[in-house]
Amino acid sequence: MNDQWIPARVGDLLSDVDTPALILDLDKFEANLARLMSAIHAASPQGRSVRVRPHAKSHKCVEIARRQIAAGATGICCQKTSEAEPFLAGGIADVLITNEVVGQQKTSRLAQLAASYPNATLGVCVDDARVATELARACQRAQSHLDIYIELDVGHDRAGIADVAGVVALAQAVAAHSSLTLRGLQAYFGNAQHLRSIGERKQAIATAASLARSAQAALIAAGFACDVITGAGTGSFMLETTSGVYTEIQPGSYALMDVDYARNEQEPNWPAFEQSLFIMTTVMSRRKDAHSDRATLDAGLKSFSTDSGPAQPAFAGWQVRGVSDEHTVLQRHGVGPELALGDKPLLIPGHIDPTVNLHDWIVAVRNNRVEAVWPIEARGALF
Amino acid sequence: MNDQWIPARVGDLLSDVDTPALILDLDKFEANLARLMSAIHAASPQGRSVRVRPHAKSHKCVEIARRQIAAGATGICCQKTSEAEPFLAGGIADVLITNEVVGQQKTSRLAQLAASYPNATLGVCVDDARVATELARACQRAQSHLDIYIELDVGHDRAGIADVAGVVALAQAVAAHSSLTLRGLQAYFGNAQHLRSIGERKQAIATAASLARSAQAALIAAGFACDVITGAGTGSFMLETTSGVYTEIQPGSYALMDVDYARNEQEPNWPAFEQSLFIMTTVMSRRKDAHSDRATLDAGLKSFSTDSGPAQPAFAGWQVRGVSDEHTVLQRHGVGPELALGDKPLLIPGHIDPTVNLHDWIVAVRNNRVEAVWPIEARGALF
Repeated sequence: MNDQWIPARVGDLLSDVDTPALILDLDKFEANLARLMSAIHAASPQGRSVRVRPHAKSHKCVEIARRQIAAGATGICCQKTSEAEPFLAGGIADVLITNEVVGQQKTSRLAQLAASYPNATLGVCVDDARVATELARACQRAQSHLDIYIELDVGHDRAGIADVAGVVALAQAVAAHSSLTLRGLQAYFGNAQHLRSIGERKQAIATAASLARSAQAALIAAGFACDVITGAGTGSFMLETTSGVYTEIQPGSYALMDVDYARNEQEPNWPAFEQSLFIMTTVMSRRKDAHSDRATLDAGLKSFSTDSGPAQPAFAGWQVRGVSDEHTVLQRHGVGPELALGDKPLLIPGHIDPTVNLHDWIVAVRNNRVEAVWPIEARGALF
Repeated sequence: MNDQWIPARVGDLLSDVDTPALILDLDKFEANLARLMSAIHAASPQGRSVRVRPHAKSHKCVEIARRQIAAGATGICCQKTSEAEPFLAGGIADVLITNEVVGQQKTSRLAQLAASYPNATLGVCVDDARVATELARACQRAQSHLDIYIELDVGHDRAGIADVAGVVALAQAVAAHSSLTLRGLQAYFGNAQHLRSIGERKQAIATAASLARSAQAALIAAGFACDVITGAGTGSFMLETTSGVYTEIQPGSYALMDVDYARNEQEPNWPAFEQSLFIMTTVMSRRKDAHSDRATLDAGLKSFSTDSGPAQPAFAGWQVRGVSDEHTVLQRHGVGPELALGDKPLLIPGHIDPTVNLHDWIVAVRNNRVEAVWPIEARGALF
């Protein structure tokens, strides 16, 4: 079905795109990629350039990953084996799964994936020695190899190891297997990304960096290599970059942005990313009388996620009154454009990652013309 | 990618299904279908059997629609043209789009779809005469025909016409076109489905039925046919069935169910549907020490929607502490099963419709064996 219902063709006018559709403003998107790279270049400690490994879980689109790498990124992050696959197939040669892969079925598929791309670098996180053993056995069967990152629990209590002794013990377990190479530490503080004040985020990342530093020192003292300390998201990456501890950052949302990240307080010298991704909708019902002044759009819970609040109009004068599976009701609330039946207003996603995951295509637009239509190859890659 | 990442094969043990996956308990599912049909049979006004047209927006799966029709349903409802297509292609010969289809591109595709299935019955809702004219022109071009239902706004203020005079005026506009046939009224009260108390739902549906009755009388007085009054959802359908006004009901969630619908107060003589659809997950990280007793699952915002609250454990003793894109953190909270790394606990979706829409496959299980794996053909059918 997906191939038949492409929302646009190259050369179409923006106003001819079928809805609901994800619209990427290419100028803003490219500016976001450049802003990140120049900010990291400027902020990296002297003589020690921090690498950028954008998180592809937020866009799931091979073409976006290619452009991130063309702009200077080292590789990408993924969350699942099935998510990594289309990126490897699309020529992205350096992929880190920033997540645990657990269960014989899953470890086997990951080891087989590594075997299918022997020239690529493929890494995965572990927080349990039994899983490391399972991964090693799977790699031996598949005659493949994996880079291993020990995940630290830097305060999230979601996954990872919170104590330095546990990290060293897990490193010993990893070192027992020739098919695994310990590369370093995954030290991502997820909750910190959405702390609104800079002060709170600074404190959180200082704690994370301190634990990462201790764990690295303990690993080195015990005779292990720990070359990479990787983590950070769009809300905090300038703090990790300047920490002197992290060697790599993993922002994802910066390229597309959303309502939630736009709420974060920013330092003046941090890069200010612009909203580049929008949901184009159609006004499918319009009422304007003594009782109501509302425009109902043809996009709802199946076109954007609401976990961080609903999508918001990209224009003034209208508020979201309700969202249901296939509808969003906008209510007039001040001065703004007149919405007429058939108009195609743009919304800004509340949370970009689960919103992109609802769509099969990104319509890339410049100067009101469709310049490209990119498949979201890793849409629905749950496994 | 989807074809390569099927979570199970027929004959697999339930415990071998890859995660996260939608698991359908076939015994419970079949019991739900039978419960609905026997309840409607028993409750229909004497000599006037109320038809059942389940809403396929909740399951998006052709095989489920086939089984609903085999159990006695008249046809199905959809919300979008692209959603209707796989059902028509799959042999479902009676489809009502319970939604407005607006814009020349969309009306053309709908008219073309009707032309592709000349032996099927295809209906659509309208609430604006301009759209009726556009639909008629598109049908003339495509040499096809559509059944038309005027949508009433029965109190939701999302779409539809709230006044009887407006309904008659729209009927006149529809009657001007030979490619359109006015069949009746769409009178669905969406908000009423989730009113928790029976009293509130009774009042809401009484209001809806009253408006539908008035509109029908006005249409007949003006010389129009109005044979069908259709509407209702899983939270209210017994009220529409016994109203004496509705000729057809549209429940969707009853077949699969969710946490939200399970919260509704029920009359003792109403059918009690069982949860038949679950999300199977894997414990991908486990911590049990003085500081924490948590199990982290490999399913999050990309495996279930949270608009009506997160998915909930299908077992006692654990509470959802946090949900992120690919994780759900369960915290011990009383007596329940011990969850170990690699275990595969089941969750109950908070809201079934947008949850199913995140998946490509339904794994149908009986007696702990996979009996079938059904594609969710209309997943992502936004257009």
